[in-house]
Amino acid sequence: MTMKPLSLILLILAITIPTSLTYAGQMPDRNHPLRTQAGSGSHRIPGVSCLSWRLAVETDNIRDWDLVPSSCEGYVGHYMLGHQYRKDCNAAAWAAYDYAKGLTLKKDGKDVWIFDIGDTSLSNLPYYARPDNAFGAKEFNETTFKEWQLEGKAPAVPAILDLYKRLLKLGFKIVFISGRSESLRFITVYNMKKVGYHTWEKLILKQTSESGTTAMVYKSKERKELEEAGYRILGNMGDQWSDLLGTHVGNRTFKVPNPMFYVA
Amino acid sequence: MTMKPLSLILLILAITIPTSLTYAGQMPDRNHPLRTQAGSGSHRIPGVSCLSWRLAVETDNIRDWDLVPSSCEGYVGHYMLGHQYRKDCNAAAWAAYDYAKGLTLKKDGKDVWIFDIGDTSLSNLPYYARPDNAFGAKEFNETTFKEWQLEGKAPAVPAILDLYKRLLKLGFKIVFISGRSESLRFITVYNMKKVGYHTWEKLILKQTSESGTTAMVYKSKERKELEEAGYRILGNMGDQWSDLLGTHVGNRTFKVPNPMFYVA
Repeated sequence: MTMKPLSLILLILAITIPTSLTYAGQMPDRNHPLRTQAGSGSHRIPGVSCLSWRLAVETDNIRDWDLVPSSCEGYVGHYMLGHQYRKDCNAAAWAAYDYAKGLTLKKDGKDVWIFDIGDTSLSNLPYYARPDNAFGAKEFNETTFKEWQLEGKAPAVPAILDLYKRLLKLGFKIVFISGRSESLRFITVYNMKKVGYHTWEKLILKQTSESGTTAMVYKSKERKELEEAGYRILGNMGDQWSDLLGTHVGNRTFKVPNPMFYVA
Repeated sequence: MTMKPLSLILLILAITIPTSLTYAGQMPDRNHPLRTQAGSGSHRIPGVSCLSWRLAVETDNIRDWDLVPSSCEGYVGHYMLGHQYRKDCNAAAWAAYDYAKGLTLKKDGKDVWIFDIGDTSLSNLPYYARPDNAFGAKEFNETTFKEWQLEGKAPAVPAILDLYKRLLKLGFKIVFISGRSESLRFITVYNMKKVGYHTWEKLILKQTSESGTTAMVYKSKERKELEEAGYRILGNMGDQWSDLLGTHVGNRTFKVPNPMFYVA
């Protein structure tokens, strides 16, 4: 195996200062060293670089995509484990807080901010960084993903946890709406509290009866019920456009970056 | 003035191979050499890099912004005049075509694709690259912008012109909806035809009576009238979220990148 100087430098960096390349102090699986084609934008979709692919995903131009293009696995891995994903999360949180602090709340217990859970509040990055998942470049495995969720070890997305704390201080009531199954309530609550989400108005999980509905339909219905119960949805934040589109989306929506998978 | 090696290299590149750094063969004003802080992500919004700021703008997380942060002028300039803007436009056009070619059109003359004009179909980049505009980092000047429009010299955005031609071949009817004033119809038609947009079903400009309405309200109303006239809006493409949000937005929307200005 021959390596170019840049590859060697990257490898040395990855070995010697791993925490600077990892997420929230979580070590990615050592069996999955990042590939050296990463960041160079190799092409699978003709004429579309990985950087442009990611922007197209983030702006909802590319929809219903199945897998991260295999040529972009390394790029997405570097993005997610490097500084830029964190910075982009920080910017989303900054924009949200900048908006939130300008609002005059009624403080009647009905001023609501909605957060999605998976890859918005809690990070599944340790799972997706595993070689069997390859940052979304390998087919989604429902069984291993559920096993990962049942471990209750997902770290917080730091920028969102920080925003959550700030919103509580401003007087918002927090509602979490997640596509996770109701059967995972115990471990979800455990995991959320463990990493710092210690209080909420509601934590809504998907009922078995709704397992056939899309996230957009399910979340729209839950938001409708919140509004019918008198809650005012002032902010709504998620990593999927299906968290933010549909009906009763709230006064402002905020997209958290996620180039690893698509949920309709 | 001292320069670092990278600055020198950039300067030499800018002097010796200017067309590779310019847009659609248009030379940016020579009085406005790109600043060397560009791309390094200097900060004005605390903790938000220029790259993250741009993503937040493109995902509509940051709204109603007035100017490009002055610390991001160079970054935005490099983005717009370099390869990445073109690549991102190509990706948006690719996603749109990938969707469009999968549709079965009725071909009754009612299958419509909507394009915005300014910085979607026609590029105002030669204007924005001028030192008095600084890629959107200086205050918008209605007078000089109108003068620029009246020159009729805006080049096409290459990726969008290409998409336009492909959509025509697929059998779409094209409708342009622009915030330009009706009083600019003659020069707009001249400019559009000159760069290759040779046919359309409708080219809708803003009436004086509507000058007080926002783009989102005005464009929603125009799209409503199209649908009431029996047109099916299958695709809708613009560089502003106000082109793509509101009502009657169409079956699919596509966001063309634009980090230079915001239109509500």
